Amino acid sequence: MALLVQKFGGTSVGTTERIEAVADKVCRFRNEGNDVVVVVSAMSGETNRLIGLASEIMEEPTPREMDVLVSTGEQVTIALLSMALQKRGCDARSYTGSQVRILTDSSHTKARIQHIDEHNMRGDLEAGRVVVVAGFQGIDELGNITTLGRGGSDTTAVALAAALNADECQIYTDVDGVYTTDPRVVDSARRLKQITFEEMLEMASLGSKVLQIRAVEFAGKYNVPLRVLSSFTEGEGTLITFEDEDAMEQPVVSGIAFNRDEAKLTISGVPDTPGSALRILKPVSDANIEVDMIVQNVGEDNKTAFTFTVHRNDLKRAKEVLQRVADELTAGQVIGDSKIAKVSIVGVGMRSHAGVATKMFEALSNEGINIQMISTSEIKVSVVIDEKYLELAVRALHSAFELDRNGVQEEA
Amino acid sequence: MALLVQKFGGTSVGTTERIEAVADKVCRFRNEGNDVVVVVSAMSGETNRLIGLASEIMEEPTPREMDVLVSTGEQVTIALLSMALQKRGCDARSYTGSQVRILTDSSHTKARIQHIDEHNMRGDLEAGRVVVVAGFQGIDELGNITTLGRGGSDTTAVALAAALNADECQIYTDVDGVYTTDPRVVDSARRLKQITFEEMLEMASLGSKVLQIRAVEFAGKYNVPLRVLSSFTEGEGTLITFEDEDAMEQPVVSGIAFNRDEAKLTISGVPDTPGSALRILKPVSDANIEVDMIVQNVGEDNKTAFTFTVHRNDLKRAKEVLQRVADELTAGQVIGDSKIAKVSIVGVGMRSHAGVATKMFEALSNEGINIQMISTSEIKVSVVIDEKYLELAVRALHSAFELDRNGVQEEA
Repeated sequence: MALLVQKFGGTSVGTTERIEAVADKVCRFRNEGNDVVVVVSAMSGETNRLIGLASEIMEEPTPREMDVLVSTGEQVTIALLSMALQKRGCDARSYTGSQVRILTDSSHTKARIQHIDEHNMRGDLEAGRVVVVAGFQGIDELGNITTLGRGGSDTTAVALAAALNADECQIYTDVDGVYTTDPRVVDSARRLKQITFEEMLEMASLGSKVLQIRAVEFAGKYNVPLRVLSSFTEGEGTLITFEDEDAMEQPVVSGIAFNRDEAKLTISGVPDTPGSALRILKPVSDANIEVDMIVQNVGEDNKTAFTFTVHRNDLKRAKEVLQRVADELTAGQVIGDSKIAKVSIVGVGMRSHAGVATKMFEALSNEGINIQMISTSEIKVSVVIDEKYLELAVRALHSAFELDRNGVQEEA
Repeated sequence: MALLVQKFGGTSVGTTERIEAVADKVCRFRNEGNDVVVVVSAMSGETNRLIGLASEIMEEPTPREMDVLVSTGEQVTIALLSMALQKRGCDARSYTGSQVRILTDSSHTKARIQHIDEHNMRGDLEAGRVVVVAGFQGIDELGNITTLGRGGSDTTAVALAAALNADECQIYTDVDGVYTTDPRVVDSARRLKQITFEEMLEMASLGSKVLQIRAVEFAGKYNVPLRVLSSFTEGEGTLITFEDEDAMEQPVVSGIAFNRDEAKLTISGVPDTPGSALRILKPVSDANIEVDMIVQNVGEDNKTAFTFTVHRNDLKRAKEVLQRVADELTAGQVIGDSKIAKVSIVGVGMRSHAGVATKMFEALSNEGINIQMISTSEIKVSVVIDEKYLELAVRALHSAFELDRNGVQEEA
C-alpha cells in the first residue's frame, strides 16, 4: 500500500464533468489500497476571472487582498472534488491551505512554503479518507492568506509529498509525459520513461513547460519521486529521477528543448575596459528586465560587442534602456532582433561525453543553419538561430542524437 | 466618534461598480471620524452559481463541503471591497470568518455563532483601518468552515456589533426602511422612523423580509441598535428599538404584513378524543413540513375539523401525509387550498388597547371579505382570507388603522 500525492491542474478540473473524471481516477487508486492525498488548482478560467474583477477596481491591487481573492478558486475545487468522491462512496475531506496549515512567509502573491503541519491529514488518511488539498495557497504566521504564485499547485503537491514522506508525487496534466522534444514539431518525438531532475529543470526553463521549475527544485531537494502523467489518457507518464541511479546507461542527450519567446540585443563599439559589462547590464536589471543568454566577443581596437537575450515582451523597453547606456558609453549602435529562437540539447550524459557540442554544430551546419550565439552548461548546450530555421533545427538535432530511435529511457 | 457596523447585502455588492459605490459610502463615514466595520455578502448570483456547481455533482451535497464551497462567495467580496477602499486612500483589511475567528457550532449550513474574537479587529480599528468581514461564515472548534444559512450575513453584522459594543448596526439593503405595509400594494404606505424589535420580528416572519429573523432576535438579545437603510439612496432608514422606550406613544398598530406563500389544509370528521391533534401533526412534522397557523373547531357528535397552514411548496406532500393519517383515524375528507393569503396587523400598542381585533374584523367585513382562519398573539392578529381579496384587505386595514395619516413613528 503506497501513499500517493496526486495533483490535478486547472484544465483537469475545468468543468464538473472533468472533476467527476478526476474522482473516478482517484477512487480507483484508493480502491487499489493506496492512501491518496489530492492537490487541485482552480477550475481553468476561474483565476483569470477573479483577477479580472480585481483589475476592474484597481490597476495594481494590494497583494494581501489579491491573495484573499484568488485563493477562493482552489477552495471551490476542493469542495466540488470532495463531493464527487463522496458520491462514489469514497470518503474524503477538503482542506484549504490554512486548514492544513501550510505555513509560508508573508510574501503575498509569491510566498514560499516554510512548514507543513501533517497532523490533520495523517488522521484522515488513517481513517481511510482521501485528503483533498487546495493547491497554490498557504497562510503566514499572522494568519494572513498567502499564495505561492502561478503554477504554485505543483509546489504544494511536492511539499505535501515531502512532508508526508509519500511514495510518489504524481502531477496530472494535459500531456502524458515529458517528450524528447515537442511532438508538434517532430513527429517521431517519444515520451521519456524517465528523466533526471536536472534535465527536467533545463527542459522546463527552456520552454517545455510541463512542470513548474520551483516544484522540480523542491522535489530534488527533498528526494520526492515525481511523475508526470495525463489526466485524460491512461499510461505511466514520465518518472523524474535522481541522476546517479543508473548514470552509465543514460543516453548522451535526453531531449531537445526550444524557445521562441526571446529577443536578442546587441550593443557594438563598447569600450573594452573593466566594468563595461556591469555598466550595460545593471540598468537593464534595474528596469526589472530578465536577461537570459549573454555573449561578449573578443574585442578589436579596444572596442567590443556585447549581446544578450531578453523576453520578447521586454525588447522595446530594454532597447530604450540600452540606447541611453550606449550614449553614456559613447558606444556604437544598439540593434534589437526578435526574429530569433533558442534551441538546446539537454542530457546528464553529456557530462561524461566529449564532442557533444561539435555534433550539435555539425548537424546544424549540415542544414545550412547559422549559429548566432552559443551558451553551455554542464548538461546542456544552447544556440540562438534565425527563427525561421527553428523546426528544421529541432528535427535535425532530434535525428542526429538518435532520439527517435533508441535509448534506454524511451518507450518500447 | 461612533463605532459603526455596516452590512451590505448581495445586491449592494452585485458588481464591481456597486462595490465602488459601497466604498464611497464607507469612506464618507470613516472620514467623518467614525470607526467602521463592514460586513458583506457574496456578490448577487454568486452563491446560486456555486450551489449550481455542487448540484451538478451531487443531489444532496455534503454539508461540510457545501460550506467550504459557498463561503468563497463572501471571501471574493471582502477582497474586492478592501481594494476599493484602499484605492480611495482609506486603509482597510479583509477578514474571513476564520480569520476574525467567528466561532460557531458544527451544524454545517445552519451554524450558530458561539463566540467572536474581537482582538484582531480592535487592533485594526485602533490603527485607523476599516475592517471588512465576510458575512455568513464562521469556523468550528476543529477549524471546519461553517455557514450560518441564507441571509446569515445580517446575523454576522449584529453579532460583530454586539461583540464590539458598537453604537449602531446598519443593515443596507435595496429598500430604504421598514414600511407600514408593502408600498407596491398601498400607495400611501409610509416608512417608519422606528419600530420595536418585537414588531420587526412579527413583520419579518410574516413576509416583510427586510431583515433575517435570527439577526433581529440576536440584536434584541444583546441590545444592539439596528437600523435598516438603503444602499442606493440617502436617508435615515428605520431604527429598530426596544419597546419600553416610549411605549405610551406607540400607535396601536404599526404595520400591516401579509403573505401569499401559504396553503391551507383541512381534515374533517376527526374523532374528538385526546391525542388526535398529535396524531395528525406528528407525521407532518416528521416529514419536515413546517406548520404555521393551526385551528381546531369545537366538535359536534364527537367529531371535529382540524385546519392548519403550510408553505405552498409543501402542500402536495403534506396532503399525501395527511391522507394516510385520515385513513388511519377513519376521519373524513382532506381538503387542500392554496388560494389563500394571510394578512396581519402588528403593533406593540395593541397590548394595552382592547378592541383591535374587532376593528380589524369590522374593516374586513365592510369590504365583504370572509375570514377563514384567525390566529392571535400579544402583538399581532392574523387572518387567512381568499387570496383574491388580499390587496383589498391590506388597503382597508391600512386605512382603518390610520397608517397613511399619522402616528409618531412615521415620517413627516
